[in-house]
Amino acid sequence: MTTRDRIRDAGAQMFRRNGYTGTGVKQVAAAAGAQLGSLYHFFPGGKEQLVEEVIRTSGPLYGDLVYQILDPYDDPVTAITDAFAIAAQDLEASNYADACPIATIALEVASTNDHLRQATADVFTGWLDRGTALFARHGLDEPTARRLTIAMIAALEGAFVLARALRTTEPLHAAGTAVATATRQALQEATEAR
Amino acid sequence: MTTRDRIRDAGAQMFRRNGYTGTGVKQVAAAAGAQLGSLYHFFPGGKEQLVEEVIRTSGPLYGDLVYQILDPYDDPVTAITDAFAIAAQDLEASNYADACPIATIALEVASTNDHLRQATADVFTGWLDRGTALFARHGLDEPTARRLTIAMIAALEGAFVLARALRTTEPLHAAGTAVATATRQALQEATEAR
Repeated sequence: MTTRDRIRDAGAQMFRRNGYTGTGVKQVAAAAGAQLGSLYHFFPGGKEQLVEEVIRTSGPLYGDLVYQILDPYDDPVTAITDAFAIAAQDLEASNYADACPIATIALEVASTNDHLRQATADVFTGWLDRGTALFARHGLDEPTARRLTIAMIAALEGAFVLARALRTTEPLHAAGTAVATATRQALQEATEAR
Repeated sequence: MTTRDRIRDAGAQMFRRNGYTGTGVKQVAAAAGAQLGSLYHFFPGGKEQLVEEVIRTSGPLYGDLVYQILDPYDDPVTAITDAFAIAAQDLEASNYADACPIATIALEVASTNDHLRQATADVFTGWLDRGTALFARHGLDEPTARRLTIAMIAALEGAFVLARALRTTEPLHAAGTAVATATRQALQEATEAR
């Protein structure tokens, strides 16, 4: 792995766990086993450039992770239930540290840095488009598919907030069940309308 | 309003918009029109004491706000739909700045400050207990009532993340609709089981 990649990955882990403003470039360099000068060599824009690259790489990768779980299922209801259960397992395995890689940053920058807010918006837009296409393949019309995708991603993000605070996986299962129920209902209505 | 209250309220607004680590005590004092020495007089523990008080006061107040909307309804499905629509209006009116007062802090401290994490957990626990009692009054058994409450709060928190990043109220309506559907389904199953 190149020094640049080591710095980016160390930044990604620290931003995810400690937030953007809670992470210093010195700490990132130290965690990557690099000199601070090396960090500024690869990221002349400093922390803001580093976090933007983290948002734009870790965000889509996390989307891939989620959709690689969801995509193969014939039944999206079971897919959602299983995906939330896997997210619960992964969160617990990281001692409630590693949830969504960009959510903390997204909330921190939403009202303070419009350039970085746009980067998080681009990532979320990518996730929404992919989910909308997935639900549409299962026979839902585009507005319903988009509405369910938003509900699914909101449920996952919100469940992570509760789960990390309460240190229990219960919110992931509860939120996943509600989205699965809403999905089952939408599929049933789509079948009946045919 | 006392100087102490002005400092606390200024802190509450800055933490909500900019996060915990993104807010400095000097800024809070300036926003409150107070001397920094005055802030430390009232909050000798500095920023950590101030944020804990903000979590433990703004958190329950926000719960009151949400449940004062939900409580009067005979039909919890309409209650949820309306509450998410009101949250959408309020968020838009604040130019996507004022959502949940403790969510950003909760994510920032979840893996970095266990004392503050516990404060956010206490607030969420209060919200969950209140919602569970609300859904139980509408005829749901306790586990179902708790599961729906968690799903509702997760949906609200997650929708705020997406809405603030995307600068649209669409996520609040989509997430609210999914929770309303899951609630309608649970009420129907409870009626059929009788």
